[in-house]
Amino acid sequence: MNPNPPASLLALDWGTSSARAYRLAAGGAVLDRREAPLGVMQLRAGQHAAALVSLLGDWAGERLPRIASGMIGSRQGWIEVPYVDCPADTVALVAGLRTTPGGEMAIVPGLVHRDGDGVPDVLRGEETQIVGAVPEGDEGILAVLPGTHSKWVRVESGRIVSFATFMTGELFALLVQHSILGRLAAPPAAEATLHHPVFADGVARGLACDGLTHAIFAARTRCLLGELAAEDVGDWLSGVLIGHEIAAARRWAGASIPLTTPVQIIGSHALVERYQVALSLADVRSAAGPPEAAARGLFRIARLAGMVP
Amino acid sequence: MNPNPPASLLALDWGTSSARAYRLAAGGAVLDRREAPLGVMQLRAGQHAAALVSLLGDWAGERLPRIASGMIGSRQGWIEVPYVDCPADTVALVAGLRTTPGGEMAIVPGLVHRDGDGVPDVLRGEETQIVGAVPEGDEGILAVLPGTHSKWVRVESGRIVSFATFMTGELFALLVQHSILGRLAAPPAAEATLHHPVFADGVARGLACDGLTHAIFAARTRCLLGELAAEDVGDWLSGVLIGHEIAAARRWAGASIPLTTPVQIIGSHALVERYQVALSLADVRSAAGPPEAAARGLFRIARLAGMVP
Repeated sequence: MNPNPPASLLALDWGTSSARAYRLAAGGAVLDRREAPLGVMQLRAGQHAAALVSLLGDWAGERLPRIASGMIGSRQGWIEVPYVDCPADTVALVAGLRTTPGGEMAIVPGLVHRDGDGVPDVLRGEETQIVGAVPEGDEGILAVLPGTHSKWVRVESGRIVSFATFMTGELFALLVQHSILGRLAAPPAAEATLHHPVFADGVARGLACDGLTHAIFAARTRCLLGELAAEDVGDWLSGVLIGHEIAAARRWAGASIPLTTPVQIIGSHALVERYQVALSLADVRSAAGPPEAAARGLFRIARLAGMVP
Repeated sequence: MNPNPPASLLALDWGTSSARAYRLAAGGAVLDRREAPLGVMQLRAGQHAAALVSLLGDWAGERLPRIASGMIGSRQGWIEVPYVDCPADTVALVAGLRTTPGGEMAIVPGLVHRDGDGVPDVLRGEETQIVGAVPEGDEGILAVLPGTHSKWVRVESGRIVSFATFMTGELFALLVQHSILGRLAAPPAAEATLHHPVFADGVARGLACDGLTHAIFAARTRCLLGELAAEDVGDWLSGVLIGHEIAAARRWAGASIPLTTPVQIIGSHALVERYQVALSLADVRSAAGPPEAAARGLFRIARLAGMVP
């Protein structure tokens, strides 16, 4: 058995806290994957080339084209790859590719979008997941990529038209780790287990709420009065924050996309589950996106760039 | 000159992070004040009596009645004084007074209120400030007590009818100290100096915003693109959070009070200034409440309780 079957591309999803490498076959299938805690936040200037060799291991010796997406192309990354304006299609992403100084790899650009008030929003990495998840030539679609900074993305005819960021995951972590609400919370029995009724109650509160900073305080009040268990504080707050995000995203998207097509959820299994529950409570249809969207997107971009046949 | 002119009451505003003591004359005038970093969070069970002696200093030897309000009456305080239900007038607060086990002082109860969905909200200390700030027998009035946990309070004919908490100050501190937004922020040149145009822009964003977790992310994006200076991040975020609070509080209060009478702002000078600017941008009239509302309220409650003539 050959431990290194023939490959055509090394694709890297290189983010803030971790880096993932994929070895892809000629048609784009994932042959193997590796992951290391070598995210942008863990690296200083001058350490990136060595980190790449460490991440790739024995793949580093293979003469294969390499392409990366994510925060590795940010000001805090290896090189700053200029943002591409929306609307942007895959051709625009290819035109924005930049190569590291030593020729180690190409990096996909992030996107910038300005809302009606001229306020900018940015993303890096999600553009590639969208390319991997949304079939080319698809009609208008709305996708959500939940996480530290959730992104809602409008795609029309293969172009990313606009997007909006919600700091849902980061705010959740801040509240649990550092706020007075977190002091009341007990860690849940098992991280993967979602307490559905509590989460649903939080989502309803978030969907209805007129003020997020008011809504979340009820976690403390209800704990004090014995109406919310300490181990449920996390799930309840998660529900409020996701509900708040969905309510705002629905208004944001509502004018352009009536949400008759399902919202695509692109993310980890645990987050997809939470968003599916929350979206159904908001009467919005949803569907889980394909797995390993980043690897698929990187392959499509590399192929259009002529890096692979 | 007598260093200790005749007094009638020692009044204590004893909160989470600090404790203030007032020596009050027979008519309620403040003769002297003392403050110490002996807040509820700094003290463990069994340390409160000694902390009181330390705070009072040579006043501790005077045979004067003592009354306190604030978090000292919470579960994390000296004794837990049960919450009183809204609507509550000063008579109800007097009925809820409790005395510490050694008879050291009386403590004013906090309030609990349930909204239309049955979700509870609580406060401790603000009930006393309201008693001190709002003239008895006044018509309907709306007051805001800005701070770590801002409280909006509806008062009708001398009764506290309802209230709502907004975690504005705590969320601001979390974002500046622990979030990705704070990493971009530089401390302002002088803490007391408000950069008005930047703050006003933040307020407008907060008043208009459909999603707080989306709105605040623009602090990062605008910094990245050179459209917001690092030393302005704090004032801009403060504006967004206060604007978000005001927009929600206006909807919360709108049904009952049309805001034709000015909103009373009860707080420190710096916060009163920010809220006056923000409320005027929201087309809501406001007025600064009287200073030392806690001391005034404690005196009124003590007099009604017969502790002072």
